[in-house]
Amino acid sequence: MSDKEEGKKKISMGVVMERMKKLPVSLWKTLYQVGRDDPRRVIHALKVGTALTLVSLLYLLEPLFEGVGQNAMWAVMTVVVVLEFTAGATLCKGLNRGLGTMMAGSLSFLIDYVAEESGKVCRAVFIGVSVFLIGSVATYVRFIPHIKKNYDYGVLVFILTFNLITVSSFRVTNVLKIARERVYNIAIGCGICLCMTLLILPNWSGRDLHKSTVDKLEVLARSIQACVHDYFEDNIDEMSSQDDIKKGYKTVLDSKATDESLALFASWEPRYSMKCSRYPWHRYVKLGTILRHFAYTAVSLHGCLESEIQTPLSIRSMFREPCINVASEATQILMHLANSIRNREQCCSDTLSDRLQEALHNLNCAIKSQPRLFISSGNHNSTSNFSGHLKNDHHSTSNFSGYLKKDHHSSANFSGGLKNDKASPSFTSPSLRNDAFSATLEYRSKRFIEQSKQPGDKRVLNTTLSKLAITSLEFSEALPFAAFASLLVEMVARLDLVIREVEELGRAAHFKKSSEIDEIKVDMKDEFKMSNMSLREMPSDVRLHGAE
Amino acid sequence: MSDKEEGKKKISMGVVMERMKKLPVSLWKTLYQVGRDDPRRVIHALKVGTALTLVSLLYLLEPLFEGVGQNAMWAVMTVVVVLEFTAGATLCKGLNRGLGTMMAGSLSFLIDYVAEESGKVCRAVFIGVSVFLIGSVATYVRFIPHIKKNYDYGVLVFILTFNLITVSSFRVTNVLKIARERVYNIAIGCGICLCMTLLILPNWSGRDLHKSTVDKLEVLARSIQACVHDYFEDNIDEMSSQDDIKKGYKTVLDSKATDESLALFASWEPRYSMKCSRYPWHRYVKLGTILRHFAYTAVSLHGCLESEIQTPLSIRSMFREPCINVASEATQILMHLANSIRNREQCCSDTLSDRLQEALHNLNCAIKSQPRLFISSGNHNSTSNFSGHLKNDHHSTSNFSGYLKKDHHSSANFSGGLKNDKASPSFTSPSLRNDAFSATLEYRSKRFIEQSKQPGDKRVLNTTLSKLAITSLEFSEALPFAAFASLLVEMVARLDLVIREVEELGRAAHFKKSSEIDEIKVDMKDEFKMSNMSLREMPSDVRLHGAE
Repeated sequence: MSDKEEGKKKISMGVVMERMKKLPVSLWKTLYQVGRDDPRRVIHALKVGTALTLVSLLYLLEPLFEGVGQNAMWAVMTVVVVLEFTAGATLCKGLNRGLGTMMAGSLSFLIDYVAEESGKVCRAVFIGVSVFLIGSVATYVRFIPHIKKNYDYGVLVFILTFNLITVSSFRVTNVLKIARERVYNIAIGCGICLCMTLLILPNWSGRDLHKSTVDKLEVLARSIQACVHDYFEDNIDEMSSQDDIKKGYKTVLDSKATDESLALFASWEPRYSMKCSRYPWHRYVKLGTILRHFAYTAVSLHGCLESEIQTPLSIRSMFREPCINVASEATQILMHLANSIRNREQCCSDTLSDRLQEALHNLNCAIKSQPRLFISSGNHNSTSNFSGHLKNDHHSTSNFSGYLKKDHHSSANFSGGLKNDKASPSFTSPSLRNDAFSATLEYRSKRFIEQSKQPGDKRVLNTTLSKLAITSLEFSEALPFAAFASLLVEMVARLDLVIREVEELGRAAHFKKSSEIDEIKVDMKDEFKMSNMSLREMPSDVRLHGAE
Repeated sequence: MSDKEEGKKKISMGVVMERMKKLPVSLWKTLYQVGRDDPRRVIHALKVGTALTLVSLLYLLEPLFEGVGQNAMWAVMTVVVVLEFTAGATLCKGLNRGLGTMMAGSLSFLIDYVAEESGKVCRAVFIGVSVFLIGSVATYVRFIPHIKKNYDYGVLVFILTFNLITVSSFRVTNVLKIARERVYNIAIGCGICLCMTLLILPNWSGRDLHKSTVDKLEVLARSIQACVHDYFEDNIDEMSSQDDIKKGYKTVLDSKATDESLALFASWEPRYSMKCSRYPWHRYVKLGTILRHFAYTAVSLHGCLESEIQTPLSIRSMFREPCINVASEATQILMHLANSIRNREQCCSDTLSDRLQEALHNLNCAIKSQPRLFISSGNHNSTSNFSGHLKNDHHSTSNFSGYLKKDHHSSANFSGGLKNDKASPSFTSPSLRNDAFSATLEYRSKRFIEQSKQPGDKRVLNTTLSKLAITSLEFSEALPFAAFASLLVEMVARLDLVIREVEELGRAAHFKKSSEIDEIKVDMKDEFKMSNMSLREMPSDVRLHGAE
């Protein structure tokens, strides 16, 4: 027993040693990755180091120390707390800090002035009460959404400064001098921060927001293209592109908090406000909301790929061309919108949406031309040997085309099939089928209960139960495709909202009007190569040539 | 001209005065609303006030001031910065602050020790270089995702403290004494914060996370119920319940950031860790992710309600019963899961999911029993007079039932219709129809371009274009319903993932095993009354009775 324990100890020690050995390498990798993801981070780190060194000079250099350096602590504190990654964030924090300090200073001087006349005990009580009241009220005010969003840090600094000054004033007589020196130091700290953030290689929140909006449009465009393309592909097991699609959506879906903070910081930045009265950063946030709304449908569209019951590829491939055309037109519009935002041009998507209408029309025609697909009773037996259907696809295709050729016969069969069920040989009576079905269901759910008692193999369990949920519905085989097509149309309808919002943004931000849209040529193939997505090959009709 | 301007000025002054008059009232309303939304906010504000007053006593009371009060500033600062709304957040910040201070103190003493021997200039250079290096590296380290998530504040405090001590040590000889007093003060501040946050009416992040997870499940349940219910209702113009549905989804979809920070803070809380080694807060985050994934489908389901092309109500209502049954079973499962989490019981949803399977099966049977619905060519003419279809619903119903009765005849009509198009009187040739259709399309898109030049009436524009996008597709009328049904099934499949994740959570958190599920009776009607949702009436079959 003790031998075993010793063995375990040795093993765990070995594991720890192994990890310790690997630690420097993994740490170095992480550090390298952080820098490679965004090289501005390295620059920002150096900027903070420089700012801190500069502010230390207040202490280290004799003449500066004699002047204002005794309270250099406040300058150091300001630099550490205020200097943020982007210019907007620094300005927001700096101005909040300034505002909070000023207001707290005024209020505490007022209270000091009122309390001056009274005796020491009275004064202590008065200070205590005012500290309690102001602290409570200010903390409560922080919960107001508007304050929380814009001035949270300002109120925090207000509480801090008010307490420090009010409490100090009880013991120190020369409060005004201390306050003045602190204000000098904070001003020096803020000045260094502003220089560092605005003049030396500034990072603009506004530019980040602009860029992230363009990225989101492009990511969505690529994802939809890949999603529709994959839907008509045979080898569904290749999950790499699926993961890419998912990752693409995820960035869009999870962008809310980032967008909002970027827009908040951008609204503090002076960069764009010189051109027009107020740059419409809130429009970017709104566009982000609409893009998320768009992405929800796209996620559902992607859900059609992952669904375990599928319209057979042979049937799907009949609509390959028109569906891919719709997706490609939608992609083209998204890429066009992304480009127009990137180049700060007002977008003009009329010709593009005309072509989208045409693509939709073609899809409609294609669906109309195959009316027999949406008969559910005609191929009842195919659902029961569904797995067989997937395996020998070739067989089913030939079957299907035969079905189309023998048009007259199958229609007659169908209309007869309803009246006289047993006429068709592969067709058992409904009640019998239902009994067999519910027996299978019972067996499966029992098996599920047994399986769920063993917490081990979750993957199998998942597949079993969700298959159970879906295959228990013997929808017409074409229905999953109908849902796919419907979602495609729904997506186009939402694309419309995206177009309008981008147009609104263009107007509100006074983007330049582009008269020659023809110049914008987007070669999707290059875009795909640039991105990390590993799409095996693109069909030739997918390439985009910009609006004609 | 100047008269006009003066008039304008007067008017704007009037508006400003009006606003100023309204300000106190609206401010009071906002403050009241903030308190009513969460009464704990009032308590928290009072707690902060009390803590600040307590810490001021260090300055105000003579004996305390003599002891440690000279550096009371640090205690005040600690209280202001560390005391947060929930216990977890306070502990997280407090421990981060402690850790950061300790490490910075050690490092700066080390540097001080190394620099002690050298001359003054040498020492200044050494301090400057070390400030630069440590500042840069620490700032860079803050970008590592793991550090950013857990120890961001700690690193900030580390930079701050390191700079303050290192720089002070250049001028002050008795650094150790200052450091000791500061540590005392910070300890006092932290102590007050911990007392306030852990002992007096504590707010637990963990409880909030637990509660918000239960709420999310319930909100989703209600939204799905209302969504499917509304789909089979006639008066779609009543938007109030629609807004409620949307709001419900929105809380779930936007919950990512809140969930993650709550889970982070909860992981610092000692409350639950006494029971088991480590409470699985990350499981709640994962459940949240899966619920969002679930909600995406629900959003698409809701999109079916808002879509402008709809399957006529007469056809939809044929599937009313089975669809509402599926939704009601799904709702019941969600409510059951919510209850089991609320009561900290391991959920046991086998019987529930059996009933769901049954409901799915019934839906399937219902769809199978109406095979003619999914023939698209049979009712080509109905799409063209679609608006008429919606208006005289009664007429179309009678038409439809007649269609069902004359089964044999209509089937023959259908099979004949394909071979000899002109045999059916209301049926023009496809090419002719297409021409007419594309002419309409052209006219509409031209109208759209004209409209888009007037930036005024956006609402109309929206409706026009998205109608254009959808009605241009002459899908079989039943296809929108097919998409709805497909999404319903997809949703059930995802519900499965939710069930499994809740089970996982129950196991991981060692919830008690509930042997008598029968006791849990959820009366949906009461739940609906309690909620703000304004559903007009609930069908009797919607009421939930818990698992049987």
